[in-house]
Amino acid sequence: MTKSAGKSVYRFGDGSAEGRADMRDLLGGKGANLAEMSNLGLPVPPGFTITTEVCHSYYQNGQTYPNGLGSEVEDSISFIAGTVGAKFGDKDDPLLVSVRSGARASMPGMMDTVLNLGLNDETVEGLAKRSGDARFAYDSYRRFIHMYSDVVLGVEHHDFEDILEEYKDSIGAVGDTDLSADDWRQVIERYKECVEEQTGKPFPQDVNDQLWGAISAVFSSWQSARAVTYRKLHDIPDDWGTAVNVQAMVFGNLGDTSATGVAFTRDPSTGANELYGEFLVNAQGEDVVAGIRTPQNITEQARKQAGSPDPSLEELMPKTFGELQDIFAKLERHYRDMQDLEFTIQDGKLWMLQTRSGKRTAKAALKIAADMAEEGLITKQEAVQRINPMSLDQLLHPTLDPSAKRDVLATGLPASPGAASGEVVFDSDEAERLKATGHRVILVRVETSPEDIHGMHASEGILTTRGGMTSHAAVVARGMGKPCVSGAGSIYVDYANERMTLAGEEITKGDMITIDGSNGQVMKGLVPTIKPELSDDFARIMSWADDIRTLGIRTNADTPADAKMAREFGAEGIGLCRTEHMFFEAERIAAVREMILADDEAGRRQALDKILPMQRKDFIKLFQIMSGLPVTIRLLDPPLHEFLPATEFEVDEVASAIGVDPEHLRARVAELKEFNPMLGHRGCRLAITYPEIAEMQARAIFEAVVEAGRQTSTPPVPEVMVPLIATRAEFDLIKDRIDAVAEQVQSETGKKIEYLVGTMIELPRACLMAADIAKTAEFFSFGTNDLTQTAFGISRDDSARFLGDYTAKGILPIDPFISIDRDGVGELVKIAAERGRSAAPGLKLGICGEHGGDPASVHFCHEIALDYVSCSPFRVPVARLAAAQAALHDAQDG
Amino acid sequence: MTKSAGKSVYRFGDGSAEGRADMRDLLGGKGANLAEMSNLGLPVPPGFTITTEVCHSYYQNGQTYPNGLGSEVEDSISFIAGTVGAKFGDKDDPLLVSVRSGARASMPGMMDTVLNLGLNDETVEGLAKRSGDARFAYDSYRRFIHMYSDVVLGVEHHDFEDILEEYKDSIGAVGDTDLSADDWRQVIERYKECVEEQTGKPFPQDVNDQLWGAISAVFSSWQSARAVTYRKLHDIPDDWGTAVNVQAMVFGNLGDTSATGVAFTRDPSTGANELYGEFLVNAQGEDVVAGIRTPQNITEQARKQAGSPDPSLEELMPKTFGELQDIFAKLERHYRDMQDLEFTIQDGKLWMLQTRSGKRTAKAALKIAADMAEEGLITKQEAVQRINPMSLDQLLHPTLDPSAKRDVLATGLPASPGAASGEVVFDSDEAERLKATGHRVILVRVETSPEDIHGMHASEGILTTRGGMTSHAAVVARGMGKPCVSGAGSIYVDYANERMTLAGEEITKGDMITIDGSNGQVMKGLVPTIKPELSDDFARIMSWADDIRTLGIRTNADTPADAKMAREFGAEGIGLCRTEHMFFEAERIAAVREMILADDEAGRRQALDKILPMQRKDFIKLFQIMSGLPVTIRLLDPPLHEFLPATEFEVDEVASAIGVDPEHLRARVAELKEFNPMLGHRGCRLAITYPEIAEMQARAIFEAVVEAGRQTSTPPVPEVMVPLIATRAEFDLIKDRIDAVAEQVQSETGKKIEYLVGTMIELPRACLMAADIAKTAEFFSFGTNDLTQTAFGISRDDSARFLGDYTAKGILPIDPFISIDRDGVGELVKIAAERGRSAAPGLKLGICGEHGGDPASVHFCHEIALDYVSCSPFRVPVARLAAAQAALHDAQDG
Repeated sequence: MTKSAGKSVYRFGDGSAEGRADMRDLLGGKGANLAEMSNLGLPVPPGFTITTEVCHSYYQNGQTYPNGLGSEVEDSISFIAGTVGAKFGDKDDPLLVSVRSGARASMPGMMDTVLNLGLNDETVEGLAKRSGDARFAYDSYRRFIHMYSDVVLGVEHHDFEDILEEYKDSIGAVGDTDLSADDWRQVIERYKECVEEQTGKPFPQDVNDQLWGAISAVFSSWQSARAVTYRKLHDIPDDWGTAVNVQAMVFGNLGDTSATGVAFTRDPSTGANELYGEFLVNAQGEDVVAGIRTPQNITEQARKQAGSPDPSLEELMPKTFGELQDIFAKLERHYRDMQDLEFTIQDGKLWMLQTRSGKRTAKAALKIAADMAEEGLITKQEAVQRINPMSLDQLLHPTLDPSAKRDVLATGLPASPGAASGEVVFDSDEAERLKATGHRVILVRVETSPEDIHGMHASEGILTTRGGMTSHAAVVARGMGKPCVSGAGSIYVDYANERMTLAGEEITKGDMITIDGSNGQVMKGLVPTIKPELSDDFARIMSWADDIRTLGIRTNADTPADAKMAREFGAEGIGLCRTEHMFFEAERIAAVREMILADDEAGRRQALDKILPMQRKDFIKLFQIMSGLPVTIRLLDPPLHEFLPATEFEVDEVASAIGVDPEHLRARVAELKEFNPMLGHRGCRLAITYPEIAEMQARAIFEAVVEAGRQTSTPPVPEVMVPLIATRAEFDLIKDRIDAVAEQVQSETGKKIEYLVGTMIELPRACLMAADIAKTAEFFSFGTNDLTQTAFGISRDDSARFLGDYTAKGILPIDPFISIDRDGVGELVKIAAERGRSAAPGLKLGICGEHGGDPASVHFCHEIALDYVSCSPFRVPVARLAAAQAALHDAQDG
Repeated sequence: MTKSAGKSVYRFGDGSAEGRADMRDLLGGKGANLAEMSNLGLPVPPGFTITTEVCHSYYQNGQTYPNGLGSEVEDSISFIAGTVGAKFGDKDDPLLVSVRSGARASMPGMMDTVLNLGLNDETVEGLAKRSGDARFAYDSYRRFIHMYSDVVLGVEHHDFEDILEEYKDSIGAVGDTDLSADDWRQVIERYKECVEEQTGKPFPQDVNDQLWGAISAVFSSWQSARAVTYRKLHDIPDDWGTAVNVQAMVFGNLGDTSATGVAFTRDPSTGANELYGEFLVNAQGEDVVAGIRTPQNITEQARKQAGSPDPSLEELMPKTFGELQDIFAKLERHYRDMQDLEFTIQDGKLWMLQTRSGKRTAKAALKIAADMAEEGLITKQEAVQRINPMSLDQLLHPTLDPSAKRDVLATGLPASPGAASGEVVFDSDEAERLKATGHRVILVRVETSPEDIHGMHASEGILTTRGGMTSHAAVVARGMGKPCVSGAGSIYVDYANERMTLAGEEITKGDMITIDGSNGQVMKGLVPTIKPELSDDFARIMSWADDIRTLGIRTNADTPADAKMAREFGAEGIGLCRTEHMFFEAERIAAVREMILADDEAGRRQALDKILPMQRKDFIKLFQIMSGLPVTIRLLDPPLHEFLPATEFEVDEVASAIGVDPEHLRARVAELKEFNPMLGHRGCRLAITYPEIAEMQARAIFEAVVEAGRQTSTPPVPEVMVPLIATRAEFDLIKDRIDAVAEQVQSETGKKIEYLVGTMIELPRACLMAADIAKTAEFFSFGTNDLTQTAFGISRDDSARFLGDYTAKGILPIDPFISIDRDGVGELVKIAAERGRSAAPGLKLGICGEHGGDPASVHFCHEIALDYVSCSPFRVPVARLAAAQAALHDAQDG
């Protein structure tokens, strides 16, 4: 970066500039951008930027300015005046300027702005004369007094509003448009009186006093309470400072040859390569967005499509339209991205006020990136880097069929996106129970609290009648990725009778409803969803990502439906199949309970024999769907009490259903109760105590391999995964059992079975002992959910009560269950990967915690050279893209 | 080690030997010991040892012997015969030998022995003639036939017993002593018939056949099922093999000039430096221990003390006594330890049969080690090394006053040592509740199960009516160090009416009983205990240990009583004062509950204001007791629900007691319920959410410092400890609060307060982040209980259900909550210590988990150079000694 020593002011406009886009640190974002546009030869209203160094010096030196700044500013004002052919403070042809802040980092709404500076009792008349519109001139003057007094002099905003309201009342006016130039003159007098009353001084008439007042106000706004807070929240250093931009005002409201508009170089909603924008004749910028007048289309094509009666800019001002087209093409080529622009036409002359990369929908982002790559404007790598992986998530979820009938009963807040249907249930325990017996439920509560977590987990979606976007329900549901509508206040919930009343209807427990967490709607019955269609752009970007990435992407899937969807989304195998979900299914839970209630191994084996054919069928299906790809199956993991009923009532119900003495069942429930189930008798500890369970599961897997091998030409190679290992001895004991079962099935069927036996690494001790464990384990899969729980000593289910505080107070940058904690959990994973591979070079390493679908975590997994990540089906494309971006990041670093 | 190649037989006796003590691997323990005694010039019956290599070769070569062994054995038999002046198989003056196994490692009772070998129909007559006692000769012969046939020929033991019983019945004899020489002859005939019937061959009359039969039997016994099992259990390699010792028989039962005895060179019970032992005239070794005849004292002094009418050996055989005295002195000097000896006097000639280090009580061990060091026989370092640290534990616990009246109602198994008194309670929840309100209880259950753990924790001791020494109650109580009597089957427990019946008495809930887990007694009422008196020897050994050790020893103490006791036991400060125990006290729990139920911070502060003066008083007392020593105080750690009632009934009771709406209390209890409290809202997380609690505690500490400083000349320097840190940010936030309170108290009192603020390192993540945390934390104290729970992912309270299986199956060598897991948890501690010190050289490091009182763990803490360990008061001497031994181990390695 070059800069003359001591230079405090950088000019721009008139087709050139002293600054450049890359001088953002010195000139701030806005200043650098204005300079860049000027250098491109675009018609930018002339102006100058006072550097961020002046701001720094201002605070270093007791809020005084460096020597020489005064004359630099004076010269630059003359430069502006000369360029636009007006004079600052001239009563005939006055120069008006805007004064705006512009920091290195964008701080939207945090800093102050003054427009129309340069107006006073004399120059206002010059403006009236020159514009031929006295009303416009006096309206501008009263706006300036209001804004300047508020921002620079500290007069309360509402004082001016009160005066205006009073005046309008006194003359019987309704809107501002009812006021004439004379009315504004009256209002201005009262404004000036008010300023003098409040500040003890008359409103400044000297335009240089006005200018320095505004400059100082911008610098002072850098230390305003809200700016300080904003910087703290966004980690922006205090000493960066802000720049001040002083720029000639231009007006789109000087009659029918003036106009103002905003435009995108491509359609921000679809991504189509078509100029897209709106404008208003004889209007100011704020009028376009204010929505009082309907803006007109810029292109004829868009006008025709919209069937608008108002002429397009293309038709109305064909020459200016042509200029705009050239400028847009130039800017897109220059910035190599779709641009969002603001322009004003003053008396037929086009002025460019702003350009920046335009915000766009996920769909448009894909199309724009893919198109630009094919146009040769960017590389395929850049196209892949342009897409925010998380934005794909919204593209992939099923949405409510827009053609389906919706019987909307109430609308709450769109607290967590996605749509879900299910039976209404008002109690979390009940939700869990119903889920366990195969129901899909929507949990309805007045509010939720930490003891509803298990119920929320068990539900398809959550509906609350109280609480906002940051209520417990909203925050937790977003964390879980479950649809949620919160604060639907028109619904009355009657817990005692298990019903709710809404829109005059009564919905009772078990009735079906649908919620749409993307718009807050609550609908009666089941509203059908549609599968999102995946665009060709999506396919193009994904195929480029796949070419780039080195990390494999698998999915966590327990059901054929999930496995199928994941495969369509590009999953290269199953990284985690949780077999317990299969145990919960309605027809099986009875056999599972029989097994748990058996008095001895023989009894357990008898019950397990009933489960075996069902498990085998599950695996056959998964192998068929994943044909040719690896499938990792985890042995039973949760503590056995999760399969037993919890409440007294349920105990009786279940006891009679499976024909056991309720006392026996109650005793077993009590016996299996744990203080800390997360740290209890689960994972491989079950297989140590009850090896027959692991043996049944191994048999189901191997028999399924043989069967699937018969049906397809290539028999699958299952990866049998032993969970929750803390020592190698645990693993070895269980592996011996699995190997013995494989041996048996081979000799029974005469088929050779290929398989791997590996382990989940999800305890800190296992990470440290990885070298030892890798001597016999044939692969590692990091279970970063449990590893995060144990490394932090935080139960995920109980964390809601304090983890919010932790991120709010900045103790943790982000919930470590959402994005992997690199420092702690990450180091454990790294240690395990290194030690594991040192003992067994080429050891296959993956991750199957929920972090597998979080882009930052995927990046980490790439960095430490894992072989694959495994994530939920909807996150598969997210992970594919994140993995490619991580590889590109590498290439740039290298 | 020197040995001639191919040499298979080593001779000993006659004042010299071919082997030495350090040839244990080759000669086995017994063979090496006999050689060593021979080399010392002691009168050892001559013999020879066939080496363990022969055993190895025997099994390597299809159970055949190496060439040349036959002639070596033959020559050696001649050597024995020549030495004792008898001949093997000679009918006039027959040599009799014993054949015994002797492995490298002691395998008590696992291997076979044959005595009196060399007797047959002819030589028995020679023996009769030579001994002048035909009855003795035939008795010896029938014993030999019985033993040889059992061990070598495989004839069933009971066949011989049946024959003998039948014969005695036939002649109306009652005891063996009623049988004459002729009777024995008759029995011998029937024995021989039996052998021929069972084996198809006559009993071997050739003494060489007898000898080889016995040698082969010993070698074969190495692979007997019980020996194989024993080796597996004790990790003894199969290829070590056993040696065979063949030794001339000597007889203490050849008349009144013969005798046999056992002796210790010092008193094994008191440690007094006095020859201690017993003998019998005209008797065999087994008679001394059999208890049929009362043994006589060896020394006059002992005889007088015992008031025995039977003469001492000193009186009876003064010359032999003199010889014995010399030998004893020689052996003790040679082995530099108290010896346990066996000797036989045959016809006035002294023979030494065995010497080994003698077992002794803990008290004697201290005295012997201390005395020997002062006698110059061993160094002080050696004295310190001689004491098993864990043996001190039993010396220090209070025991029941032996002079107190005991009303013993029942006796069960002594399942876990120690005595305890308390109110009877039959329910674990009730036990916990009573404990919380200041009661001391004894939990009585038919059996315990994992859901009784909290009740066991809350009790002074546990009594069960069912289950053995390895029942749940026994195992868990030993783990907790709580007294337990198990399987007291004469007690009938009636849960429904909360009472038990025993010895015709009825004991109801709330009645006081005392249990003694050292002898299984259950007593009515409170039996007073006495403080153990600590001997001068204890003090001597401890002071030497203190000189040697480099590790500091602190105590975990929450009460003045514990602190005082620990200081008496040598604690150098408090390493962990758990403040929550103070919250549970009856007068305080109401204020604590008021705080938890408060709706806002103001309400909480109001309740905390009530607790403040009580906490301050606690700390003043602790500071006074620990005057001049550091005191580490941990901020509140457990989740708040622990302070609230758990059952419906208690909720109502507590609600009315503290005057709140039971519904409100119930709601708060439900709200605070956690799925995994161990991983929940506890530790520093409480201080993050409710900083006012930490502030109150900090104020109590600092005000106590000022007050204690006024009372004593040296104000204490408290170490304020923040628990359960996972990130430095947590620590910093809380430290800021503590510092602010210190500032306030300083300005209020005008006294400068010195203090440290540090943290417990008890989460895996904290270990990894230690470098960062050490930048602001002023000390680390490792909480290895929670670190073990999180590193292993095992809840201590839930582990009983599977951890037993883990140690039984060898998955874990020992319960990691008892002795630190060096590989996993230990590495985490090591990482944290290294990283912490790298960031803050000289950082004070300690450990305050229960491992601090486990010798192996103390050793580990010394190795990684921690500054101190902190343990329960009774373990303080254990830790002092273990620390000294660790330091000595270092010195030896270095």
